[in-house]
Amino acid sequence: MAVEYATMPSHPQLNKRGELQHLLTIEGLPRAIVTQILDTAQSFVGVSERDVKKVPLLRGKQVFNLFFENSTRTRTTFEIAAKRLSADVINLNVSTSSAAKGESLLDTIDNLAAMQADMFVVRHASSGAPYLIAQHVAEHVHVVNAGDGRHAHPTQGLLDMYTIRHFKKDFSNLRVAIVGDVLHSRVARSDIHALTTLGVPEVRVVGPKTLIPGGLEHMGVRVYHDMREGLRGVDVVIMLRLQSERMRGALLPSAQEYFKHYGLTEEKLAMAEPDCIVMHPGPMNRGVEIESAVADGPRSVILDQVTFGIAVRMAVMSILAAH
Amino acid sequence: MAVEYATMPSHPQLNKRGELQHLLTIEGLPRAIVTQILDTAQSFVGVSERDVKKVPLLRGKQVFNLFFENSTRTRTTFEIAAKRLSADVINLNVSTSSAAKGESLLDTIDNLAAMQADMFVVRHASSGAPYLIAQHVAEHVHVVNAGDGRHAHPTQGLLDMYTIRHFKKDFSNLRVAIVGDVLHSRVARSDIHALTTLGVPEVRVVGPKTLIPGGLEHMGVRVYHDMREGLRGVDVVIMLRLQSERMRGALLPSAQEYFKHYGLTEEKLAMAEPDCIVMHPGPMNRGVEIESAVADGPRSVILDQVTFGIAVRMAVMSILAAH
Amino acid sequence: MAVEYATMPSHPQLNKRGELQHLLTIEGLPRAIVTQILDTAQSFVGVSERDVKKVPLLRGKQVFNLFFENSTRTRTTFEIAAKRLSADVINLNVSTSSAAKGESLLDTIDNLAAMQADMFVVRHASSGAPYLIAQHVAEHVHVVNAGDGRHAHPTQGLLDMYTIRHFKKDFSNLRVAIVGDVLHSRVARSDIHALTTLGVPEVRVVGPKTLIPGGLEHMGVRVYHDMREGLRGVDVVIMLRLQSERMRGALLPSAQEYFKHYGLTEEKLAMAEPDCIVMHPGPMNRGVEIESAVADGPRSVILDQVTFGIAVRMAVMSILAAH
Repeated sequence: MAVEYATMPSHPQLNKRGELQHLLTIEGLPRAIVTQILDTAQSFVGVSERDVKKVPLLRGKQVFNLFFENSTRTRTTFEIAAKRLSADVINLNVSTSSAAKGESLLDTIDNLAAMQADMFVVRHASSGAPYLIAQHVAEHVHVVNAGDGRHAHPTQGLLDMYTIRHFKKDFSNLRVAIVGDVLHSRVARSDIHALTTLGVPEVRVVGPKTLIPGGLEHMGVRVYHDMREGLRGVDVVIMLRLQSERMRGALLPSAQEYFKHYGLTEEKLAMAEPDCIVMHPGPMNRGVEIESAVADGPRSVILDQVTFGIAVRMAVMSILAAH
Repeated sequence: MAVEYATMPSHPQLNKRGELQHLLTIEGLPRAIVTQILDTAQSFVGVSERDVKKVPLLRGKQVFNLFFENSTRTRTTFEIAAKRLSADVINLNVSTSSAAKGESLLDTIDNLAAMQADMFVVRHASSGAPYLIAQHVAEHVHVVNAGDGRHAHPTQGLLDMYTIRHFKKDFSNLRVAIVGDVLHSRVARSDIHALTTLGVPEVRVVGPKTLIPGGLEHMGVRVYHDMREGLRGVDVVIMLRLQSERMRGALLPSAQEYFKHYGLTEEKLAMAEPDCIVMHPGPMNRGVEIESAVADGPRSVILDQVTFGIAVRMAVMSILAAH
Repeated sequence: MAVEYATMPSHPQLNKRGELQHLLTIEGLPRAIVTQILDTAQSFVGVSERDVKKVPLLRGKQVFNLFFENSTRTRTTFEIAAKRLSADVINLNVSTSSAAKGESLLDTIDNLAAMQADMFVVRHASSGAPYLIAQHVAEHVHVVNAGDGRHAHPTQGLLDMYTIRHFKKDFSNLRVAIVGDVLHSRVARSDIHALTTLGVPEVRVVGPKTLIPGGLEHMGVRVYHDMREGLRGVDVVIMLRLQSERMRGALLPSAQEYFKHYGLTEEKLAMAEPDCIVMHPGPMNRGVEIESAVADGPRSVILDQVTFGIAVRMAVMSILAAH
């Protein structure tokens, strides 16, 4: 799958001391750093359950939520995480702003950096945009990729790992299946890199031929086109969101047809291990990629993912700010 | 008027100990709780006049302003109230967000609750939406109705009561007239319930037959179609905003014609008691439902309503958060 | 140039003790007050470099960013400045709000003031709008003009002066050239008044006849239509942004033609003093009014302007709030 973003600039995620300088992708991230993030997140889960949910780690720091592509849900989780760390948060929907005045991406960044930003959380429709920003900013400024094109969504990947670790304790004996539109999914890419890094012995992807990229086998990932086969004996199912534009295009016959073959039902889930957990990055298309009985059922940990997502984003921001 | 929302689910506003758990409507709210809110608001009016206008009652709490229908003015008053209580406030205009991705109302709520919301302030075009949310959320989460369809706008009703109490001291000997488009007004509904609950002996509504709902007489409300008759001897006039879409429809001949019959002028106001106060929920249509001489005149308390509105919303939020 | 806004109401910027009550324009502002603002800003530049970038001067104060015209960049700098002073900031894009409901400007202001605003930062497409607001509000409320029509943009003028003072130390022996669309530029107006007030002996404007207003010579400003002549021997060049709508209209032949004559290039800049600094209010049109080699070159202080802009806005707000 690396060929998908072979043109990506080399990622300067780590500083010279090997510490996290930016979070751009999980690909190539040392296992020790992934584990550091998960461990730090664990300490913040406690904070979220306290009556006063704030810690002063980023007090006086300025976090810019730079969303070139609209995503209220992801922006909100970063906003909450930053506020719990006592940062000042500036939300910028850049599509409606300077971009309309013809200012270039890097001019926008230069200007915001000159306002003494400490951190940029960047969502962009183009793969690689957060890399360009990370390569451009001064050393004391940190960049978090909040989703770039089809490329990566590392905090989603990390919160998925946190969720799996929370429920399964150990990665070393798991079978994990990722089901759906793997081809267009930055979540799938980040999850595959994270699972591999953490030593999960068996990672599967399940989906129709039109939605599975080539070359996955070379990464040690097993490809299934039959969902029942793909779910047999797995401990974790990660469902992917089916973008509605796929259904309008030539890649898929219809939502009904998709649900029949790749929608997660109780009946198909019966192929998995009895204590299998079900995950989804949200927002769900009920009746398309997942039926409500499963989404709201006892094996669903979909809302736990959201809760853990706050703690994981707090962890990433606090680790970055400490360097 | 209860028939207007006979299909509303039973409202779970009070917890088992009879304390306020959510604020959804003034209908059925015990008089003691209404009075508790007004008394608490009175203590916050002082805070607003201090140099540092903050109290730490909601420090570390997360308040989500969930506006499915745009209302900058109402959202701003809740935002100010929450910030004065030291809460973290997240503003969400949901029409532009997940709703567009086909996520259901309750999935949106589940996700935000999983981000550990402590309170939802909800404005929705559909009557009853805040009830659905209140019935759905966990016990430690509180819902405030910031206006749902034609149904209720309880904080407006409460700030109107605060304003009346401030200027008139005693509810037990008042004549109050509500004038205008009662049929479509959630403010009118909330005011009628509040006035009745607080023991106001004479509540009148004044308006054209097309804009007055049936059945009001059964609630002890007197209906007038002649404004001069309706204002005779009243102590309080509550003018309602005339939505411009009413004037375009078949319900009204024209804005000029409406003003002639139901616009509040100094001349018509002369029918009321000399110390009558004039109220309006805003924003006003000057020259349609009210003339500027009255709106800006000595008997107008319209801007006092706005100021008291902050204190009343602080009171509601702090009472909810205490449970 | 005073004729351009001869119809402006007399500006009530100073209170009876001669202190700054509002900041509406630099025209007529006493030199002592301009210097006070620059000196105060200097103390805040240090704050911005600290690890915790906050001071409690506006704690509990409410600052309303009232933008009737969209400008994410300017709004963001005011938001940052206010948050660093520990104020509560309410952002309002008024075009999408009450204005759409037919509420008048002053009714909107009255309502927000009733929510106990302490300061309004106002951007408006109509020259003079901040004056109307300043004349209308109560004595304890302060107004900052964040740009009104073609009239004034005083905080931009002040941050430009701060930048010049930072790099040139002394105003009393400078030659400053302002280049471009002076006719439509509120920045140019504010800069000319500021430079004159601070005693700069030689202020030049450079541009095509269609973009230079008449009457400038009476203000002691020298007009050049040949850019090389205009830049000869200057210490400071202030480039103006060319609004793209000018190029579509009859005032200019084309962007290429404009760049040829009035675009700042290294070659034209060679006419200036060797230590000349280059300024631009942003956002830049690279290749239209300025070439990238200059914008990113060693004499460019464009990003310093942005950084100093935060400190200058903190200075203005803290001086206003102290009165």
